[in-house]
Amino acid sequence: GFATIDTDRKHRTGLPEVIYASGKTTEQVRLIAERMFNKGIDILATRATPEIYEAVKMVVPDAVYNQLARTIVYKHKEEISGKGYIAVVSAGTSDLPVAEEAVETARFLNNEVVTVYDVGVAGIHRLFNKLDLIRNARVIIVVAGMEGALASVVGGLVDKPVIGVPTSIGYGANFQGLSALLSMLNSCASGVSVVNIDNGFGAACQASLINKL
Amino acid sequence: GFATIDTDRKHRTGLPEVIYASGKTTEQVRLIAERMFNKGIDILATRATPEIYEAVKMVVPDAVYNQLARTIVYKHKEEISGKGYIAVVSAGTSDLPVAEEAVETARFLNNEVVTVYDVGVAGIHRLFNKLDLIRNARVIIVVAGMEGALASVVGGLVDKPVIGVPTSIGYGANFQGLSALLSMLNSCASGVSVVNIDNGFGAACQASLINKL
Amino acid sequence: GFATIDTDRKHRTGLPEVIYASGKTTEQVRLIAERMFNKGIDILATRATPEIYEAVKMVVPDAVYNQLARTIVYKHKEEISGKGYIAVVSAGTSDLPVAEEAVETARFLNNEVVTVYDVGVAGIHRLFNKLDLIRNARVIIVVAGMEGALASVVGGLVDKPVIGVPTSIGYGANFQGLSALLSMLNSCASGVSVVNIDNGFGAACQASLINKL
Amino acid sequence: GFATIDTDRKHRTGLPEVIYASGKTTEQVRLIAERMFNKGIDILATRATPEIYEAVKMVVPDAVYNQLARTIVYKHKEEISGKGYIAVVSAGTSDLPVAEEAVETARFLNNEVVTVYDVGVAGIHRLFNKLDLIRNARVIIVVAGMEGALASVVGGLVDKPVIGVPTSIGYGANFQGLSALLSMLNSCASGVSVVNIDNGFGAACQASLINKL
Amino acid sequence: GFATIDTDRKHRTGLPEVIYASGKTTEQVRLIAERMFNKGIDILATRATPEIYEAVKMVVPDAVYNQLARTIVYKHKEEISGKGYIAVVSAGTSDLPVAEEAVETARFLNNEVVTVYDVGVAGIHRLFNKLDLIRNARVIIVVAGMEGALASVVGGLVDKPVIGVPTSIGYGANFQGLSALLSMLNSCASGVSVVNIDNGFGAACQASLINKL
Amino acid sequence: GFATIDTDRKHRTGLPEVIYASGKTTEQVRLIAERMFNKGIDILATRATPEIYEAVKMVVPDAVYNQLARTIVYKHKEEISGKGYIAVVSAGTSDLPVAEEAVETARFLNNEVVTVYDVGVAGIHRLFNKLDLIRNARVIIVVAGMEGALASVVGGLVDKPVIGVPTSIGYGANFQGLSALLSMLNSCASGVSVVNIDNGFGAACQASLINKL
Amino acid sequence: GFATIDTDRKHRTGLPEVIYASGKTTEQVRLIAERMFNKGIDILATRATPEIYEAVKMVVPDAVYNQLARTIVYKHKEEISGKGYIAVVSAGTSDLPVAEEAVETARFLNNEVVTVYDVGVAGIHRLFNKLDLIRNARVIIVVAGMEGALASVVGGLVDKPVIGVPTSIGYGANFQGLSALLSMLNSCASGVSVVNIDNGFGAACQASLINKL
Amino acid sequence: GFATIDTDRKHRTGLPEVIYASGKTTEQVRLIAERMFNKGIDILATRATPEIYEAVKMVVPDAVYNQLARTIVYKHKEEISGKGYIAVVSAGTSDLPVAEEAVETARFLNNEVVTVYDVGVAGIHRLFNKLDLIRNARVIIVVAGMEGALASVVGGLVDKPVIGVPTSIGYGANFQGLSALLSMLNSCASGVSVVNIDNGFGAACQASLINKL
Ligand SMILES: Nc1ncnc2c1ncn2[C@@H]1O[C@H](COP(=O)(O)O)[C@@H](O)[C@H]1O
Ligand SMILES: Nc1ncnc2c1ncn2[C@@H]1O[C@H](COP(=O)(O)O)[C@@H](O)[C@H]1O
Ligand SMILES: Nc1ncnc2c1ncn2[C@@H]1O[C@H](COP(=O)(O)O)[C@@H](O)[C@H]1O
Ligand SMILES: Nc1ncnc2c1ncn2[C@@H]1O[C@H](COP(=O)(O)O)[C@@H](O)[C@H]1O
Ligand SMILES: [Mg+2]
Ligand SMILES: [Mg+2]
Ligand SMILES: [Mg+2]
Ligand SMILES: [Mg+2]
Ligand SMILES: [Mg+2]
Ligand SMILES: [Mg+2]
Ligand SMILES: [Mg+2]
Ligand SMILES: [Mg+2]
Repeated sequence: GFATIDTDRKHRTGLPEVIYASGKTTEQVRLIAERMFNKGIDILATRATPEIYEAVKMVVPDAVYNQLARTIVYKHKEEISGKGYIAVVSAGTSDLPVAEEAVETARFLNNEVVTVYDVGVAGIHRLFNKLDLIRNARVIIVVAGMEGALASVVGGLVDKPVIGVPTSIGYGANFQGLSALLSMLNSCASGVSVVNIDNGFGAACQASLINKL
Repeated sequence: GFATIDTDRKHRTGLPEVIYASGKTTEQVRLIAERMFNKGIDILATRATPEIYEAVKMVVPDAVYNQLARTIVYKHKEEISGKGYIAVVSAGTSDLPVAEEAVETARFLNNEVVTVYDVGVAGIHRLFNKLDLIRNARVIIVVAGMEGALASVVGGLVDKPVIGVPTSIGYGANFQGLSALLSMLNSCASGVSVVNIDNGFGAACQASLINKL
Repeated sequence: GFATIDTDRKHRTGLPEVIYASGKTTEQVRLIAERMFNKGIDILATRATPEIYEAVKMVVPDAVYNQLARTIVYKHKEEISGKGYIAVVSAGTSDLPVAEEAVETARFLNNEVVTVYDVGVAGIHRLFNKLDLIRNARVIIVVAGMEGALASVVGGLVDKPVIGVPTSIGYGANFQGLSALLSMLNSCASGVSVVNIDNGFGAACQASLINKL
Repeated sequence: GFATIDTDRKHRTGLPEVIYASGKTTEQVRLIAERMFNKGIDILATRATPEIYEAVKMVVPDAVYNQLARTIVYKHKEEISGKGYIAVVSAGTSDLPVAEEAVETARFLNNEVVTVYDVGVAGIHRLFNKLDLIRNARVIIVVAGMEGALASVVGGLVDKPVIGVPTSIGYGANFQGLSALLSMLNSCASGVSVVNIDNGFGAACQASLINKL
Repeated sequence: GFATIDTDRKHRTGLPEVIYASGKTTEQVRLIAERMFNKGIDILATRATPEIYEAVKMVVPDAVYNQLARTIVYKHKEEISGKGYIAVVSAGTSDLPVAEEAVETARFLNNEVVTVYDVGVAGIHRLFNKLDLIRNARVIIVVAGMEGALASVVGGLVDKPVIGVPTSIGYGANFQGLSALLSMLNSCASGVSVVNIDNGFGAACQASLINKL
Repeated sequence: GFATIDTDRKHRTGLPEVIYASGKTTEQVRLIAERMFNKGIDILATRATPEIYEAVKMVVPDAVYNQLARTIVYKHKEEISGKGYIAVVSAGTSDLPVAEEAVETARFLNNEVVTVYDVGVAGIHRLFNKLDLIRNARVIIVVAGMEGALASVVGGLVDKPVIGVPTSIGYGANFQGLSALLSMLNSCASGVSVVNIDNGFGAACQASLINKL
Repeated sequence: GFATIDTDRKHRTGLPEVIYASGKTTEQVRLIAERMFNKGIDILATRATPEIYEAVKMVVPDAVYNQLARTIVYKHKEEISGKGYIAVVSAGTSDLPVAEEAVETARFLNNEVVTVYDVGVAGIHRLFNKLDLIRNARVIIVVAGMEGALASVVGGLVDKPVIGVPTSIGYGANFQGLSALLSMLNSCASGVSVVNIDNGFGAACQASLINKL
Repeated sequence: GFATIDTDRKHRTGLPEVIYASGKTTEQVRLIAERMFNKGIDILATRATPEIYEAVKMVVPDAVYNQLARTIVYKHKEEISGKGYIAVVSAGTSDLPVAEEAVETARFLNNEVVTVYDVGVAGIHRLFNKLDLIRNARVIIVVAGMEGALASVVGGLVDKPVIGVPTSIGYGANFQGLSALLSMLNSCASGVSVVNIDNGFGAACQASLINKL
């Protein structure tokens, strides 16, 4: 077969194999989803188009689609195993798809999630209004495009691990997210780590591992 | 001769010709300084090494050297012609050479200057403590390296033009100042413009033109 | 809600919150516009497609669309509060969308605007013909793509602040505007600052702040 | 003064202000160290040359220098407050300075540390020999240059958060650490986040925050 | 004519001229295929769209299309002249089009091929399960996107030449395959060479030359 | 009006103003063409889509379209004023659009042109077969994508100025023509200069100036 | 031996082999110079340190060193074979080393040279003062760093071929000459071609070929 | 200890562990060399300074230093196990250090080596003079800087695998070897693979594996 599903991954890494739909044909995603469903594995597909969702629904009728996040989720059973909650903080409305991908993934991985949206540094008082909510999280995901300054500002205000997710929102010298990525990597706040541009999924995976420690 | 001094520049652009010492031999800088001195033109040399200063002092004994800023200054007469003051705000101690280049240049161009140093976003309360001083300036220069977030934060808090100067302070994915440069160019605060990395000189030139409007 | 409108921004920064339509759904833009309209806030949306305009017109019937600039504007009241006029100077016909975005924004912010179009350095006499008009402005926005040389040339001829807007016009080693951006950042004329590639909006914001000093 | 020490930082962020010696004069570092010492703040200086150490020892006689890590440390009292241990895993001998910076920082922040050195993927059995030691850590720092593959391989084998530190070890298309940085950002293992190239300090800061949850 | 077919190439270099369909019009490909067919030259077209295939089938009715690989193949006679087999190893399902281009090319050049798919380092045991099959190949092609770590891991486990093919699979800081390319070029395993991003064709060409030594 | 046609350009620079259609609306191109036609100026439009051609034909019925080159040409009178001929040499079939843009431009500027196509270095004997034709040109334009080696090879074989035109043909580490551009800029043959990626137009302009000396 | 001198090069390409001293040991340069001298070949060494000059003088006592240009020249006989003169135009004093390399090379190749120095666009009247001298040249070399705008401005004012030489003069977003290089490659003036950053040598080679047509 | 020597590597991969001296202290290299010597492992150290050699000679008196290649070699026994010879072909004299690193490594790995130096494409007849010698090799390493065209030209002329080694020789738009690297990756000759910039070592490793098939 074209795919060697890593069924042991959840046990080994605490994170199950997930379908990254981009670059796969609709047919391939459908077949993988079907196989996982039949083996009783929970299903998360990211970067999934509506067309892919339609195909997956054929074989997993109860799968749920989040159009903004472009995720398909199917869980055999709901539960919460994280110890605290994960805060997903985002800078602008345009960053929502990435923030929502993080939210969907974190919930899929059995975490409680709190969202604090549209609090970018151009109007920093909006962030201060929500600071307690953020500070009480066990781990914080900061999603920001353009210059990504929000990650540094949050990192300088809390005593919890901050995971920055640069987004590709912007244009020109943004270079598809490079500006936010470099910003976050060079954060003057020292508790900040970073994942790939637009990688809400990866941030949530690490946040989940942290939240279960 | 090797240099065509643009004696008319001050009249034409409001800014006199200035000696950019980098890439010139000590001999060349000394000769240009001498010629300017003899013509009664005020002298500012930037990026000047101590060795260049020694050579210039031979021909312009009252020239003053700022070692941190690497500037040589000689003015035939002190005066203030700016309408308000220029605030020079910097993020970290390592950004001081660039901030000081801006200060020296702004003063050379007959402006009053106020400095607000070491108020980077890793400890943002330091900035809020000085906010009134910054808000009362006529124009604000923000000097910051690493992720350069300070320019956006200041830009979101004031109603005066902000000129960002990214510095090359940092390492790794800083790429000699690229991270701060891209950050400032992509600022989510909309009143921010940017000059070249480490270009305290250029920022002060524009601030001076604004301060004299 | 997905958006935290920064209603205090105009008071704080002199510039109201503006809708950056790119990366938002039509539905999101419509909702934000509606809310702003109801709160009596003036509306400017940039990077707006005709489709978005149609949606906004449903809720703000008197909104005006500039197809070249891709802006939607609605002001509750017209007035002029800038002290002089802003000159918007552009290099070639292909740079017009960006120049027009600057014009629309500057007018939205209550400034008088004068345009000097298609005067790129390939035929520099065209610029000299308009030099007085440019020199009499209070602040000058120079919009240029390709090698962006126009910013330096203008900067060397006037005693007013020049804000360069590199455009993405060009191809090949233009790298979507990088050539003009780097050019302007490295301008040998010292009163030039720069905003992001294609950011006519940001240039006008800063010009407006300057024009109101 | 030139520096605004952020004395409240430890309380606010769980991490005290630390002296980043690069780009500061020896005199500046000595003065900051002295002031911190007098205020009873623990001292960590990173990127410190032997010459800087000599100067600091004048004012803080018991400060300790790690030549490989280029760190100066002085703590008023030793204690361990992390809940488990932090594993610092490195790929090659040339990566040791960065790994040691992480170790020194993690210990400075009161964590127990275990090191697993020289286990790069060119001889992957070396890693498998130490896998239990790594798996039992509470959080894992992976330090690797060249292609940085080690972060992905470790990330695929453990159920703990992995923080990747790309190093600038390599040459040519390594581009001063870019290859390892991009590798780690694109890791196919999903629990991996990344800090700046050569930023052992930052990785340890986040690891410490995680270890104290 | 617009094309100077290099009919002597097979004799000179062991590899016949091949049609690189990208950037050519359908008409051009059809004409070249026809001419080659009439001269008795075997035909391989890469990067061919279904539309191009339809046109070629008009003039070469027995040409075969591999939709995943985007290749058109027509051989006057089947034979095997390689001495051992070529292993094509790939990391993820999304890398299949490139892997299949390599497979089609290698077979077109008269080699036996064995495929080992979906064994990326996120679940490295999958690779170990197939290690004997890989070790017994005469030459190994490793196809991987994202961080491309698989090439280093395989290179560290076998005593045969490894040719890495970075793919453009990924997003964000992947920069269209740059991350995998730089990874493979900086491999800490010393027997690895690299071809262009997505160049399954070129890898198979070199593997074929090696397999016939 | 939106365009300031530089009617004096031909007299001043030997090259008339030309319409660069990319980034202009069809309407804008049509209007400029009409105005030029009415003033008796010869018309060359580059990067013109078929749709633009249809619009121009409305106002300049005898305008001629070269679909491969994407050029529209209208000359009031044919003549030859170059002293020798210009050789346009290209590497592969995919480079033809750029080569043809050069040919159309050179002819528009009253030069005799000879074409030598599809003689890339993968089969270098094809080049040697045409060497006399190339050597007898007065100036040589070399059009090549991928690694652009052809410019160096030709430059090492002739005693005439060689103008290299890198094309964007290729993929992956070609980076839209960057590889060929850097190649040609670093040519070990010393009589080679370079124009922008895909800039057949510019190469022909300079070749024409040279051919008329 | 380590070097295969291309003694036929002058006959074949009109340009003799030249010693590129950078990256060679002093011993290697001395040996090559000696062999060329003994064969009666004229000697030009570029990028030569004073130390290399001392070594060459041992074997070629009459060799002449230009310290600014870093060239060593020895000609068996002086003569002029170019048809007109080559103008070497430079923007700033810091660009002189590159301009002088062009001058030395052009003279070595038997051309008359006229220099027009320090006429950058920051004071464009300086250029207009010398315009006739420039216009009367047969071919023009424009040497400029920072934003390199001078090449476009000159290109828009003359009807002779212009060869741009970007220099590495500048800092920050200059990226060692990238800004000037991209500027010149994207020149809106159409008769401009470009050579490598700091390549005064190559520009003079092509100018010489043109001047002898 | 700081180093985990991979003693099994030769058996596993056909290539023994080798000391990459760059980024290691002299002391570290000396200790590793001593340990290998004592275990009877053959020693190759690359990127070794003369100072490192002096230290190694203390513990391995018969170690041999190649100053150009910067290699230290010690073999317990000489033998030849490759089936044919490896040709090392280089473009210019400045590329010799990298070519020699390849030669030293290939011989260390028991291969016969033939060198063909200084045959770059600026004088391509030099290559044709040696073509038989190159064609008769079992595998060919092509070392070239600047535009690296030699790899493509050789690749188009032989029916053996070609491994390209781009060198960092050049300046300006060479970007420390990027131009040659991209050139070789985009070679229009299809049997060419590439190793890292200046990686003579890696090329020889793969060539050796091929030569022993
Ligand atoms: N630190 C600086 N950064 C950028 N430009 C500068 C700096 N200092 C001086 N300049 C500019 O460089 C010009 C002198 O260039 P040059 O003709 O090479 O001496 C001055 O007139 C200034 O406009
Ligand atoms: N090696 C390091 N890498 C990155 N950031 C550091 C490093 N060492 C210290 N820092 C940060 O830099 C801050 C000091 O910056 P400054 O105000 O310029 O002294 C510290 O508080 C740390 O957060
Ligand atoms: N997928 C591919 N990737 C890289 N090179 C290719 C590919 N397919 C064909 N080629 C090469 O491109 C040449 C054809 O180029 P052209 O003359 O433009 O048709 C062939 O002879 C091959 O050497
Ligand atoms: N300054 C220079 N810039 C670029 N190429 C040069 C320069 N000086 C000499 N060359 C070229 O480099 C060749 C010598 O290369 P090599 O064989 O390494 O000595 C000469 O024949 C010239 O074509
Ligand atoms: Mg918002
Ligand atoms: Mg500080
Ligand atoms: Mg125009
Ligand atoms: Mg090791
Ligand atoms: Mg898979
Ligand atoms: Mg062809
Ligand atoms: Mg000057
Ligand atoms: Mg040579």
